[in-house]
Amino acid sequence: MPWPTRSNETGMMQDSIRFFGLGLGPGDPDYMTVRARKVLETADRLVHFCKRGRRGNARTIADAVVGASPEREIALVYPVTTEIPADHPDYAAALNPFYEEAAARLQAEVEAGHVVAVLCEGDPFFYGSFMHLWWRLKDRVPTEVVPAVTAMSGAWTHAGAPITWGDDVLTVVPGTLPEAELTRRLSGTDAAVVMKLGRNLPKVRAALGKAGLLERAIFVERATMAQERIVPLPDLPEDIDAPYFSLIIVPGHGRRV
Amino acid sequence: MPWPTRSNETGMMQDSIRFFGLGLGPGDPDYMTVRARKVLETADRLVHFCKRGRRGNARTIADAVVGASPEREIALVYPVTTEIPADHPDYAAALNPFYEEAAARLQAEVEAGHVVAVLCEGDPFFYGSFMHLWWRLKDRVPTEVVPAVTAMSGAWTHAGAPITWGDDVLTVVPGTLPEAELTRRLSGTDAAVVMKLGRNLPKVRAALGKAGLLERAIFVERATMAQERIVPLPDLPEDIDAPYFSLIIVPGHGRRV
Repeated sequence: MPWPTRSNETGMMQDSIRFFGLGLGPGDPDYMTVRARKVLETADRLVHFCKRGRRGNARTIADAVVGASPEREIALVYPVTTEIPADHPDYAAALNPFYEEAAARLQAEVEAGHVVAVLCEGDPFFYGSFMHLWWRLKDRVPTEVVPAVTAMSGAWTHAGAPITWGDDVLTVVPGTLPEAELTRRLSGTDAAVVMKLGRNLPKVRAALGKAGLLERAIFVERATMAQERIVPLPDLPEDIDAPYFSLIIVPGHGRRV
Repeated sequence: MPWPTRSNETGMMQDSIRFFGLGLGPGDPDYMTVRARKVLETADRLVHFCKRGRRGNARTIADAVVGASPEREIALVYPVTTEIPADHPDYAAALNPFYEEAAARLQAEVEAGHVVAVLCEGDPFFYGSFMHLWWRLKDRVPTEVVPAVTAMSGAWTHAGAPITWGDDVLTVVPGTLPEAELTRRLSGTDAAVVMKLGRNLPKVRAALGKAGLLERAIFVERATMAQERIVPLPDLPEDIDAPYFSLIIVPGHGRRV
């Protein structure tokens, strides 16, 4: 089985790497990197995280490049979803064995000679589930992480909204924080991105209002994918939960010449 | 002259676009997107910003894909570099006519039928000079902006340093801010990126120290390029100016399971 090779800066071929954290970008397959495409076409184990009974979002992004190929697929099914709050001890108790078992399984695949690519939405090292596998495996198997266009870059690009100008400060917050904490973090920033919306959307909206950012906030759902939706946040109905693939951007308005 | 075409979400071909803000990523040509490669290979006007007598950094990133082709090159030479502080009225006075003339020149190229790509390091809408052309031209010529892997993504990936975990807050600050302002913005954040180092490095180091982040800070120069250098900030000599292609990352240490 051939696998991807590349030169590093000394010209040495790093052809022993068979474990990849593969950032696939925000959704549009044309926004994958050249490196991601190459690894995707070569890997013979395509790993994705998913909820029970659902196909993983990262796997769906890869559809444009690799069709269904059951013998290559490894689905890592989360043991819990949103039933246990993420700050509850039971959450870590449930997820730790899951990541341990997944890491052992992938290590065995690598040691059996397979080229294993963990498919990641956006950039693997930016709020990515892959990191929980990475820090377990990085000293056990040679690893390459392929950076990618983030979902937030896809969002501000398609919204036609440059995010930072000149001396702007950008604050990225997860919507999972308490409202007072969100308000504090957002107050006084020039530009902002709110990740992890879901059922946090009403709370996030309130915090943006208190921070004086609501009028400039833009809601972006499925950025760069089919059914992309871009709406000024003040125009978004109050009573919806935000879907997984959504975020809020608040463009900066710094020095322009 | 053929030019790039692509489908949007309704399936309609947007084949009239001949003006591109083309994000080329952090430096490694394999980290360009598929879309960027395609536009780069097709454009017959390659535009880059540069300082007098210097080749632009974005143009250098493109070298791996397009060789020197004098008839295609348009260099936009900045009228000022670092002699005038960016917050001085003379700075805007010098730059405004420069951007106005550049925009008019590029509009004329587009109207003459050429496919004009403005080459951008990193992501065009993230602290990019391109934005000053974009907001002058966006209502005058059909425009496509191609998002890209940011320099900071390249940096945290090659440093082997996941930037945000779980509920981490990320703060991105330009090193150009006053020290007290930097200290205030950096205090209490979980993760940070400091852009625009240059001669601001000593001030940034002091602010990181006061914010309690110095021990975790990593200096990254020329991320993903040849001569990449990654050094824990406390180990970096005190007396250097940082080069243009450098930044500091402070990885988060949020919830891990």
